[in-house]
Amino acid sequence: MKLVQRENGFSIVVNDKEIIEHSIENPCIYVGKGKGTYDMFRGNFKVKDYICEKIGLNDFEISVENSRVIVTFSNKGLNAIKVLFIEEDGRTVVKFLENPDNFNRFWLRLKAEKEEHIYGCGEQFSDFDLRGKNYPLWTSEQGVGRNKNTYTTFMAESMDQAGGDYYTTFFPEPTFISTRKYYCHINNSAYMDFDFSHENFHELQIWDMPEEIIFETGETYLDLVGKLTALLGRQPELPEWVYKGVWLGIQGGTEVALKKLENVVEKGVKVSGIWAQDWEGIRMTSFGKRLMWNWVWDKKLYPGLQEEIKKLRERGIRVLGYINPYVAIEGSLFKEASEKGYLAKNKEGKDYLVEFGEFYAGVVDFTIPRACVWYKEVIKKEMIEFGLSGWMADFGEYLPTDVVLNNGVSAEIMHNAWPAMWAQINREAIEEAGKLDDVTFFMRAGGTGSQKYSTMMWAGDQNVDWSLDDGLASVIPAALSLGMTGCGLHHSDIGGYTTLFEMKRTKELFIRWAEMAAFTPVMRTHEGNRPEANWQFDSDDETIYHFAKMSMVYTNLAPYTKELVKENSNKGIPVQRPLFMHYENDERSYSIKYEYLYGRDILVAPVYEPGKTKWNVYLPEDKWVHLWTGKEYSGGDIEVSVPLGQPAVFYRKESEHVELFKKIGEVKHMGF
Amino acid sequence: MKLVQRENGFSIVVNDKEIIEHSIENPCIYVGKGKGTYDMFRGNFKVKDYICEKIGLNDFEISVENSRVIVTFSNKGLNAIKVLFIEEDGRTVVKFLENPDNFNRFWLRLKAEKEEHIYGCGEQFSDFDLRGKNYPLWTSEQGVGRNKNTYTTFMAESMDQAGGDYYTTFFPEPTFISTRKYYCHINNSAYMDFDFSHENFHELQIWDMPEEIIFETGETYLDLVGKLTALLGRQPELPEWVYKGVWLGIQGGTEVALKKLENVVEKGVKVSGIWAQDWEGIRMTSFGKRLMWNWVWDKKLYPGLQEEIKKLRERGIRVLGYINPYVAIEGSLFKEASEKGYLAKNKEGKDYLVEFGEFYAGVVDFTIPRACVWYKEVIKKEMIEFGLSGWMADFGEYLPTDVVLNNGVSAEIMHNAWPAMWAQINREAIEEAGKLDDVTFFMRAGGTGSQKYSTMMWAGDQNVDWSLDDGLASVIPAALSLGMTGCGLHHSDIGGYTTLFEMKRTKELFIRWAEMAAFTPVMRTHEGNRPEANWQFDSDDETIYHFAKMSMVYTNLAPYTKELVKENSNKGIPVQRPLFMHYENDERSYSIKYEYLYGRDILVAPVYEPGKTKWNVYLPEDKWVHLWTGKEYSGGDIEVSVPLGQPAVFYRKESEHVELFKKIGEVKHMGF
Repeated sequence: MKLVQRENGFSIVVNDKEIIEHSIENPCIYVGKGKGTYDMFRGNFKVKDYICEKIGLNDFEISVENSRVIVTFSNKGLNAIKVLFIEEDGRTVVKFLENPDNFNRFWLRLKAEKEEHIYGCGEQFSDFDLRGKNYPLWTSEQGVGRNKNTYTTFMAESMDQAGGDYYTTFFPEPTFISTRKYYCHINNSAYMDFDFSHENFHELQIWDMPEEIIFETGETYLDLVGKLTALLGRQPELPEWVYKGVWLGIQGGTEVALKKLENVVEKGVKVSGIWAQDWEGIRMTSFGKRLMWNWVWDKKLYPGLQEEIKKLRERGIRVLGYINPYVAIEGSLFKEASEKGYLAKNKEGKDYLVEFGEFYAGVVDFTIPRACVWYKEVIKKEMIEFGLSGWMADFGEYLPTDVVLNNGVSAEIMHNAWPAMWAQINREAIEEAGKLDDVTFFMRAGGTGSQKYSTMMWAGDQNVDWSLDDGLASVIPAALSLGMTGCGLHHSDIGGYTTLFEMKRTKELFIRWAEMAAFTPVMRTHEGNRPEANWQFDSDDETIYHFAKMSMVYTNLAPYTKELVKENSNKGIPVQRPLFMHYENDERSYSIKYEYLYGRDILVAPVYEPGKTKWNVYLPEDKWVHLWTGKEYSGGDIEVSVPLGQPAVFYRKESEHVELFKKIGEVKHMGF
Repeated sequence: MKLVQRENGFSIVVNDKEIIEHSIENPCIYVGKGKGTYDMFRGNFKVKDYICEKIGLNDFEISVENSRVIVTFSNKGLNAIKVLFIEEDGRTVVKFLENPDNFNRFWLRLKAEKEEHIYGCGEQFSDFDLRGKNYPLWTSEQGVGRNKNTYTTFMAESMDQAGGDYYTTFFPEPTFISTRKYYCHINNSAYMDFDFSHENFHELQIWDMPEEIIFETGETYLDLVGKLTALLGRQPELPEWVYKGVWLGIQGGTEVALKKLENVVEKGVKVSGIWAQDWEGIRMTSFGKRLMWNWVWDKKLYPGLQEEIKKLRERGIRVLGYINPYVAIEGSLFKEASEKGYLAKNKEGKDYLVEFGEFYAGVVDFTIPRACVWYKEVIKKEMIEFGLSGWMADFGEYLPTDVVLNNGVSAEIMHNAWPAMWAQINREAIEEAGKLDDVTFFMRAGGTGSQKYSTMMWAGDQNVDWSLDDGLASVIPAALSLGMTGCGLHHSDIGGYTTLFEMKRTKELFIRWAEMAAFTPVMRTHEGNRPEANWQFDSDDETIYHFAKMSMVYTNLAPYTKELVKENSNKGIPVQRPLFMHYENDERSYSIKYEYLYGRDILVAPVYEPGKTKWNVYLPEDKWVHLWTGKEYSGGDIEVSVPLGQPAVFYRKESEHVELFKKIGEVKHMGF
């Protein structure tokens, strides 16, 4: 870090990159006061701010001691705040030391270049390159439709305030990577809004005094994600059994599950898990079948499950379950948590009850250490000891802002921190059981800390449709942006989840989604919120045969995938990568958001539109081989045939895995 | 005006009402800098602001000379602005004297009370009482649907950015009346946003340094509107011929017009005018039939019109036309204006062309005095001398913000001023022709100055539906809020105007709208943008008979209506009045927005829902007589029968017009 002083300003330069530029005319820091309102309906938030004041702090006084730079920003001495710029472990850290006027809004301007691109900010479903818009960072439901110009979004918005928008996400994070080759991370969990729409500056708005703002430069993007994850943490490798096949999302009880399993196994599908989210029982609501939310095996719905788990395990098939951070009021766990004082409170000091659509649940207060211990015991006893090898650790993004938490910190501040706290509970339960190499969980909600605690992410609740902002396509920028935020293991519900209004999952959508999923670390299906309205993996034999082929592609690819997962675990390099990560000099690659590199050697261009037999693909300059035909390409815009069963996938001719890839290209099964 | 000084602040008190309260903790003035963006598509604007700074000016220095109070607001001397508080002609005037830092955003906080109601701000279609929300003030298309939760709004928004919202209006004005019994008016035409959502203060945001902010108190609301219109101006009385019957909105040429006229006259409809908006010819677009926009009689479409005008005049029937502030590029007037340099320019110095949906037009630059003279000559020669007795002076609200005007003032500032400038052209043309007692025009766009220059307003383009925010009902708060802004003459297109998507004007809607229109100063029909999709006044005989009856009600009521119009002209008391204007002590009356007093003695509760045979009405305490049955009521919530032809109308038993009203209640025509 270097401080460059000028008569009317100064710059903070990191490895020859001017990150912050301050002058009396264009201050880098603004402070103010605001009053936010958070209108929440079932996890969908309308957050508004009334900005009472926003003051540019033009004047500055610099004092330098050793390598500590302290700048007192003010307006001729008024509204002064004290900021420390310091180098720590090779990182440039900005610390806000004093805030005597109790400002609760901070704006930091970073120097921007016109041609710069920005990536990250957690899981972004609509945009990959974030330059040109602002991104509110607040964990919430992702929204249904997520595009104000679509009928689906309009209907969801009108009926349930649930339409979402281009920025709504389960996993926002104040962390990004710039093509000026630095990352920026803000250590704070308040509501933020990162505005990348200005030509000459980025403006980072924070609704709290940030603890630290951290910058670090890198030589390459590989280097940068490595450094970022050295700071934030990295995910462990996946258990070995995962790679043996798909996880079938099945509901309905022991008999149904086994029947469905045998049917598809018989027809060639490689299966490594049955994921039964209703292992703890169900309830009916108008949205569809919902779960019981009392995290104990439902013996009625799943008779003999414990015995079956043992038998399946011998066949290399595991059983996965489901949990979330709430306990439904009808259940034994609610009663226990309530009696022990482990639930978050309302303003009257009573257990806060969250309405989840025709039922209520209490919020386990993760700011109470004993509550965490207790919830981990529940996981260890009821899930791990019971025999589950993994689970969906659902939710995390709903924490209402008017809840009263035991640690005395405002829920407005704790809200964005909640997902990682929830991840930590799950992670520690597994670690304490000594099972990190054998048990895994996957989350949709996230934030700073998910890198360290969550074993894997899934993309949440896509619509069962082809929409760009909330369908199949949206999963791709989601995986890529999360990778740029330090979370490199991603997968999605094959076929999507949400069926509302006139939506129905079609056969073609399921098939295309499965093709993409074969090139992600985990292949997992979900019946969706209205299973009967959706095409399922076993809706006809043709679908099963196609699915079987893709499961073979996945299992055959396992040696390669394992290497990628290991690389993610050791170096923080995501499994799914944007093209520019390996082709830095390719200008075009920076704006590609619906293709990805699967590791160094495979390029995947998922078909995300219906009715396609040909697909346009952009290949960066290299020696590429089309997976199914062996045809070679040297880069540029090409068109390939994409019959069902042959997604647009290419491998590098110079890869050391060429033999493996060739074998995969030859996989055939019952017409696919 | 009284200045009350305290140690850490001061108050401006007007007739014992504390209007402005300043303290070091809660300053009354904030200044700042912002950069607005105005995204316009066919008159629908998306206005956004990037607020760079917003600074509370806590510190103050007061100097008093005679009755001039000058306060220098600052932050310990920084960001100083100088403000004069002075009494002028009984009004309290706030003048901003110095702005050395070139701030372009000003926020003035007024003291607010929790139970206070606010009315006015021009023509508001969704709300009458404005307390609880903020109202951007920017003249534009009113929007189609105007409610983000309706399908119509969604469709209009998705297709043409045209959906609108609760505040979108042709006629916004920075003028309001508070139930604390004062009015406030800001003398400036920049974009503003009045925020009445805070409990303890109203915050008026102005995107320019305001010339003057004017306050005046009153004893009663009658007194207040009188004082407000003494400041802003008052509309003239309507020509005598107006009261002889309805204005038939007819298009299609001389023969069609006369045929339609004779048909309904024969069946009993009292007619005082044919309003032929296509007198200057038509063009076809995908939105429907559109006009030619070259303000010269189209002899082909209207052969012999001049002769017919004379003949009709002898029968007491006038002909009205149409004009707007644009000249279509195909026409002779565009050619002339372009050659003379009377058109507004683009940034390249060429004539600015506005796209109006498949055709283009130039903008007559009203900042060029000779252009105004020329346009007035066009009106005088082509319209008044030609024989028209009135016209719709359409548009005025579209002025693009990137147009370059001759006076050098930014179009961002001139935009809101444009409607009144357009009104002035029309008004002066009539005055210069010496015809103010015989010729009238009606506008939808408005702003400060419309009170003085526009002879009458109409409610613009309602949907042909029953929607609250954009259908029949919306016309009522529109009339009332405009009355509270000083414009007391209002009417609407009977049956509404806009047909888009699945909308169609039904027979019932036409009938209910005509019933309401009989109790407004002018009854006028409009075929709508898609005449063939809409029920028209002559679509069947039953409709004609009903319309005939309502025309008789209107003509019979003329002596009373004329008195009201005169009162509006002399005292500024609107013809359509909110209930509280005469029942100040009735708490409930302050929240009634879908009923109105028609002068002192008549209460109208229009039926604004379909399929109703009974209607709930609230009557303030008084002696009321139901117009059609003579049944007496003393006030409160009542239910009355509302068969077609008998809208819910009541008169005061103690009125001096009781005999007239009784006669009207007895009007019968062919079953109605």
